[in-house]
Amino acid sequence: MQEFMTKDFLLNTETAKVLYHEHAEKMPIIDYHCHISPQEIADDRQYDNITQLWLGGDHYKWRLIRSNGVDEKLVTGPASDRERFQQFAEMLPKAIGNPMYHWTHLELKRFFGYEGILNGETAQEVWDLCNEKLKTLTVRKMIEMANVECIATTDDPIDDLAAHKAIAADTSFKTRVIPAWRPDKALNIHKAGFAEYIKKLGEVAEIEIHCPNCVKKALKKRMDYFDEMGCCASDHGIDTIPYADLDGVDIKAIFDKGMNGEKLTNGEVAAYQFYMMQFLGREYARRGWAMQMHYGAVRNSNTRRFEQLGPDTGYDCMGATGNPFDITRFLDSFEKTGELPKTILYSLNSGDNAMLVSIAQSFQGPECLGKIQHGSAWWLNDTMEGMTNQIKTLAEVGLLGNFIGMLTDSRSFLSYTRHEYFRRILCRIIGQWVEEGMYPADMKTLGEIVENISYYNTKRYFGL
Amino acid sequence: MQEFMTKDFLLNTETAKVLYHEHAEKMPIIDYHCHISPQEIADDRQYDNITQLWLGGDHYKWRLIRSNGVDEKLVTGPASDRERFQQFAEMLPKAIGNPMYHWTHLELKRFFGYEGILNGETAQEVWDLCNEKLKTLTVRKMIEMANVECIATTDDPIDDLAAHKAIAADTSFKTRVIPAWRPDKALNIHKAGFAEYIKKLGEVAEIEIHCPNCVKKALKKRMDYFDEMGCCASDHGIDTIPYADLDGVDIKAIFDKGMNGEKLTNGEVAAYQFYMMQFLGREYARRGWAMQMHYGAVRNSNTRRFEQLGPDTGYDCMGATGNPFDITRFLDSFEKTGELPKTILYSLNSGDNAMLVSIAQSFQGPECLGKIQHGSAWWLNDTMEGMTNQIKTLAEVGLLGNFIGMLTDSRSFLSYTRHEYFRRILCRIIGQWVEEGMYPADMKTLGEIVENISYYNTKRYFGL
Amino acid sequence: MQEFMTKDFLLNTETAKVLYHEHAEKMPIIDYHCHISPQEIADDRQYDNITQLWLGGDHYKWRLIRSNGVDEKLVTGPASDRERFQQFAEMLPKAIGNPMYHWTHLELKRFFGYEGILNGETAQEVWDLCNEKLKTLTVRKMIEMANVECIATTDDPIDDLAAHKAIAADTSFKTRVIPAWRPDKALNIHKAGFAEYIKKLGEVAEIEIHCPNCVKKALKKRMDYFDEMGCCASDHGIDTIPYADLDGVDIKAIFDKGMNGEKLTNGEVAAYQFYMMQFLGREYARRGWAMQMHYGAVRNSNTRRFEQLGPDTGYDCMGATGNPFDITRFLDSFEKTGELPKTILYSLNSGDNAMLVSIAQSFQGPECLGKIQHGSAWWLNDTMEGMTNQIKTLAEVGLLGNFIGMLTDSRSFLSYTRHEYFRRILCRIIGQWVEEGMYPADMKTLGEIVENISYYNTKRYFGL
Repeated sequence: MQEFMTKDFLLNTETAKVLYHEHAEKMPIIDYHCHISPQEIADDRQYDNITQLWLGGDHYKWRLIRSNGVDEKLVTGPASDRERFQQFAEMLPKAIGNPMYHWTHLELKRFFGYEGILNGETAQEVWDLCNEKLKTLTVRKMIEMANVECIATTDDPIDDLAAHKAIAADTSFKTRVIPAWRPDKALNIHKAGFAEYIKKLGEVAEIEIHCPNCVKKALKKRMDYFDEMGCCASDHGIDTIPYADLDGVDIKAIFDKGMNGEKLTNGEVAAYQFYMMQFLGREYARRGWAMQMHYGAVRNSNTRRFEQLGPDTGYDCMGATGNPFDITRFLDSFEKTGELPKTILYSLNSGDNAMLVSIAQSFQGPECLGKIQHGSAWWLNDTMEGMTNQIKTLAEVGLLGNFIGMLTDSRSFLSYTRHEYFRRILCRIIGQWVEEGMYPADMKTLGEIVENISYYNTKRYFGL
Repeated sequence: MQEFMTKDFLLNTETAKVLYHEHAEKMPIIDYHCHISPQEIADDRQYDNITQLWLGGDHYKWRLIRSNGVDEKLVTGPASDRERFQQFAEMLPKAIGNPMYHWTHLELKRFFGYEGILNGETAQEVWDLCNEKLKTLTVRKMIEMANVECIATTDDPIDDLAAHKAIAADTSFKTRVIPAWRPDKALNIHKAGFAEYIKKLGEVAEIEIHCPNCVKKALKKRMDYFDEMGCCASDHGIDTIPYADLDGVDIKAIFDKGMNGEKLTNGEVAAYQFYMMQFLGREYARRGWAMQMHYGAVRNSNTRRFEQLGPDTGYDCMGATGNPFDITRFLDSFEKTGELPKTILYSLNSGDNAMLVSIAQSFQGPECLGKIQHGSAWWLNDTMEGMTNQIKTLAEVGLLGNFIGMLTDSRSFLSYTRHEYFRRILCRIIGQWVEEGMYPADMKTLGEIVENISYYNTKRYFGL
Repeated sequence: MQEFMTKDFLLNTETAKVLYHEHAEKMPIIDYHCHISPQEIADDRQYDNITQLWLGGDHYKWRLIRSNGVDEKLVTGPASDRERFQQFAEMLPKAIGNPMYHWTHLELKRFFGYEGILNGETAQEVWDLCNEKLKTLTVRKMIEMANVECIATTDDPIDDLAAHKAIAADTSFKTRVIPAWRPDKALNIHKAGFAEYIKKLGEVAEIEIHCPNCVKKALKKRMDYFDEMGCCASDHGIDTIPYADLDGVDIKAIFDKGMNGEKLTNGEVAAYQFYMMQFLGREYARRGWAMQMHYGAVRNSNTRRFEQLGPDTGYDCMGATGNPFDITRFLDSFEKTGELPKTILYSLNSGDNAMLVSIAQSFQGPECLGKIQHGSAWWLNDTMEGMTNQIKTLAEVGLLGNFIGMLTDSRSFLSYTRHEYFRRILCRIIGQWVEEGMYPADMKTLGEIVENISYYNTKRYFGL
């Protein structure tokens, strides 16, 4: 029997241990997609207690506590931070098999030096220990402890990126922090606030917007600015990959309806989004940016809670599988003219994994290794089985050696342990293949593969 | 090498053995969803031979025999019981990897004390042994041998529940037998016999039914009666979870079409069903009943055999994955007004597992632990891999510790061994996690988790 | 640690080793579905070098090389054969976990006696060795080395089957080579070239075609000819299993539109295809042919490459899951009149596996063992995990013992090693079940099961 979470956690073969400890573990982290606040890095934010850090905005944790029959006031508040922490601690032992159980204990070990088990009885001890450490453990300290070389935050086109400038100007902090371009609001023509957003976009870009073409011009100016600030990737969070036959479609009319807040059909939304993506994707290709497409979530499913707590509070679900015809036509629309950017495809429904790998394989190109990528297991799939499935599917249907690997997609400064989790799982899988005679025990080649997937592939792919 | 089906069957770690033998095995069974006949319990039915018991109505077995190229007369009859048993026995060795192989041998061991292997050559020996035992092995005896504390049968609103009354009145039988509410026929407006059924419902409820509202009134009266008889759960067997925008829809007109046997559109059927569920779900919430939603089957796919043998004879298939938008809107329609009942979601397509867990997580509430549940692997998924997948998915995306666990969904009095099968698989999975260092070897906590999932969670959830 | 690809490759239990070496390995191969050229067998083609053999038309390999960022001229040409081989060899180590890695090394071992590892550094050595062997290693030699008893090629109704005649006439070659019937072009009414094809079909069948009924007559004449030539199976490569309500549909009008190259609706295409399948399926039933239905691919997704390289060049993707209602209605349409032929169902989306097995189970019949089959893992699923999933799903939801097992679906004369790969995986799975106590260690029964799935079931199923 292996003890709980030793240094060889998840590494169940000698090969896995060597690959992890001599290769994966030593690699810096490039966290190319996350949702942490650059302002908090600029400010080098400090937390008063572990509840602020862990339960301030982490809806993964909120969901689990709610599943334990806990009243909302003890989840998101207004109960005291200590009481809320207690609820989390008491729920945790039931989260057997959940990645939260592993993440929590990895974070306690790596950042706080706590080697025990968190539960209702140890909650006070953990609370005291963490809060003591948090007096000096600022967000920059966390980032440095995790050996993070580069972070790409997620930013709106209208953002002034002042925080990124401040971080870049401070030579005492070694980690590079760059923006990523997330223009969802300019594409969500069917959502409340579209007109207001477009107005703001025009102001920031100093362009008066009265047509789709003006939107493009404004976005282009902002892309120029993001590019200057080191941006190398976009990110799109969409219900489905949009595709529409634009023949004879009056985009201006759709745009006007959206600006007037009129109700749009699904077809009109898809047409506007596909039209706008046609422009954006080509700009990404021209600039060498990667296009990240995240689809397949059903968001804000619980109306009562949405009205009470807003978005990103733990009421999103896994959506249906994607339409392979639309996804291939979407990529083909760029490929036809040789303007397909580097692309990373993510679905929240893991039933799409093999399909997306097979689609990626059909649009590769000589611009770089693994130009079209199936993204690492995303959000609800970011689990032991989920990551294992993603890695094995990619290996079997695609070319694992060129995979750009893990990202945190996180709102927390402690979640770099997810890279550790991923790397351990990767070494575990490869170790099993090798020790079962399915791949030669050529440690040089294996070490390279592991280092590439942990670090070098990402560095090359984004040109960092 | 482990021998076939020893006392440690499926328990491949020491931890699993301890968890099973010291915890799971000792727990009574609460079989909260099944299709056995309460009348046969009341009558304490006795079977003449093993064919009557095993091949009388078990379409799982019929399907396997048919797959072996056997003519229908040797499957459902009119061939002799001995001949039919022979066909089953000769097919069985080919069912390697099928749960039927395991269930059959578990049943032979637990109820008949047979430790051998059933096949064409041993068929006579097994036939003789079982038939001898069946002289004293009545259905009540089987239930007692399996340590069943409570059984919820599946009953139609028009049922008088006389059998339940008789069982309750007989103090010599310790197992509690309660009804569950299955109003499918009142919702299946598009199916033959709807008008006749509604007429009967009116008679039983002593209400003249000429509108949807009258249906509600009649159902409500019957729910009151079921409630008195100890009912604590409903059950719905539907093609898809219904959702419709009822704005401007004339439900009375749809109802009238249904009563007249006119053809209805899919939209009309969904509107009627969603309308009726709006009423039913709120009633369930008010009474503290659980709402069980079973969807995703394609029923009676083989017309020739349906006409010959009727429904539930082995011609149903796995359907498509569910629509996450409709499912979330369905739940949200109750949650909006704070009237969402405890709900258990089951899909026959296991591709929905992670989606359903993620949906359940978005509608939890403080009324009880794990208010919204993803149901145990159902019907065609009720297999080693299927149950493992369901348990692991629930653990990774939800909170395994609050799972209410197994049910038989069976028509047979021997199938309590499926609870044993489930518990062994549960202990197997947890044992592997522990011995691989993925969860602490804290046997007290682990024992509680296993006992809860085997028994206590169910008891609490249904208030039994 | 197991060394790479020893004689016990993939066999991780003693039971698996015995089952493979004493049973599976000894069975001849019946490759009942492939795409090799009968003409090349008739000619006993010889290859100048390993690139011709491996990279001449194998789009699996092309896709992997492209994923490695290699320019097209080094993939399909016009770069030299030696340069192209180098690209393949340099990519290969990155294909860790991909079946290509295993197939390649199995082929090198079995056909060329090479026991080393292929990579960029050993490419020259492998090139020299293989090319030397290829001086005497003709396609007939390869087939004989692989112990192939029978091959079914895939042939168009208008094919004169001259190559098959020539092979049959040559008594020096022991392997039987029979045609399989693939009438896709007569069904693809919506595709370019339909009218030309129908015209050719008329010429070959000596029937003037001006209506759907004439198409049937012509196809029937050709079926008679194929039947004479030993054909025992059809094959259909379709987007989705067609189903349509033909009531009131004017098939002649649809046919005329197709012949005139007019654009057809999806409904019209489905109607024509379903209409034609109604005829074909009944003919198959009458003749005892098996009907193979392959669906679920998105073909030629990359327009630029399609225009440059044509079809079957590595730009196909996995499609969406199938519609279970249409698939069951399709089968039911034959079953209703007792004219359902033996049928093998294949989906490119493995999410359909359990559904297809459940559908197959609903249409079995006494004509033969396992009349309706779920086909072996197809194309992109033809991997370690993919085959394991298919076998386990079939075992759990169906009756594994009657499975007709593997086929190559290949364009290469070396790919018989895929049968070896499949048989090893089969023995691996069964070995694990046995050694974990999930099936009795009755080696006689187990040996029979393995031999049946490897060989005898196929022989019986097709009447070979």
